[in-house]
Amino acid sequence: MAEGSDAIQTLIAQVARLPGLGPRSARRVVLALIRRRTGQMAQLAALMAEVAERSRECTRCGNVSESELCPICADPARANGELCVVEDVADLWALERGRAFRGRYHVLGGTLSALDEIGPDELGIPRLIARVGDEGIAEVILALNATVEGQTTAHYIAEALVSTPVAVTVLAQGVPIGGELDYLDDGTINAALRARRRL
Amino acid sequence: MAEGSDAIQTLIAQVARLPGLGPRSARRVVLALIRRRTGQMAQLAALMAEVAERSRECTRCGNVSESELCPICADPARANGELCVVEDVADLWALERGRAFRGRYHVLGGTLSALDEIGPDELGIPRLIARVGDEGIAEVILALNATVEGQTTAHYIAEALVSTPVAVTVLAQGVPIGGELDYLDDGTINAALRARRRL
Repeated sequence: MAEGSDAIQTLIAQVARLPGLGPRSARRVVLALIRRRTGQMAQLAALMAEVAERSRECTRCGNVSESELCPICADPARANGELCVVEDVADLWALERGRAFRGRYHVLGGTLSALDEIGPDELGIPRLIARVGDEGIAEVILALNATVEGQTTAHYIAEALVSTPVAVTVLAQGVPIGGELDYLDDGTINAALRARRRL
Repeated sequence: MAEGSDAIQTLIAQVARLPGLGPRSARRVVLALIRRRTGQMAQLAALMAEVAERSRECTRCGNVSESELCPICADPARANGELCVVEDVADLWALERGRAFRGRYHVLGGTLSALDEIGPDELGIPRLIARVGDEGIAEVILALNATVEGQTTAHYIAEALVSTPVAVTVLAQGVPIGGELDYLDDGTINAALRARRRL
């Protein structure tokens, strides 16, 4: 009975399973929602129900969408020749916040992983290869995470596209903006040194 | 448009306002909920709506409750003579998890704060004093946080009860179980030293 009613305990347990939250932070969140007299919890519940009801996957790129095609796939102003491959919708959002890329996306939904039995078919890589041909893509930008899994997946995709005329590129590696050398790992410093350019 | 539809953006903004969460963790939470195909978001939304609908404040102690009196105030097996005063429902929950206290509670809902214009009336301290008399309380345990605000509030309450026959106690201060002296602050070490006892 420590954490109030059964409903409250179930709610805390569910919130605690969300990424980045644990039992303690879940208790804080639920208590804060109960305490705010403005009915914020009911409002949040309604909003979640709405998003849950309406959200689906874009059939073309895998982005979160409210319709068959996501706003990016449906946007005629975006460049058709450039396809940016990302692991995750969160990565797509991060790139969109940067506003530098104006082409199309393809969300893999993960990386190749022998341990988790995620192979090319599970990631829909054949569908990606088909897209590159069907949509006349000139450049595939592999914007995968700079992790072992991300890079393995990038190499697999590059290999699969080697017989096609498409140009395959990857994000540059180097010192992040505002980065201090003293705080960077050796791998990043070495990559930045290898990729040095004339001022 | 970076974060999907308007509803998704609003949901992320609301989740980001919860304690311990920020824009980045809110994006992760919302994406995780959208991605889980099991309808977890709809389930969570329904549960939140239920808790929001049913939760209220116990009219006697200020605990979260589904009825006029919370389960602790309504429990005839709890000791009537001991009243444990806490700042917050989260503190009540923490004490209940310990299972050491079997008396009644009183939740202040905060601490005295001249800056935030929270005086004794805002905290319902007159109501607490009245309860002590009405319910024939023999001991008031001030289980407030060991912060300046918590201790100021504890001293104020002790002062207000000085003319009554009730015994006012506070939680012991000292080395936490499993604590290493090297990692403790001077204040805790000094308090533990002053309160030392014979083995």
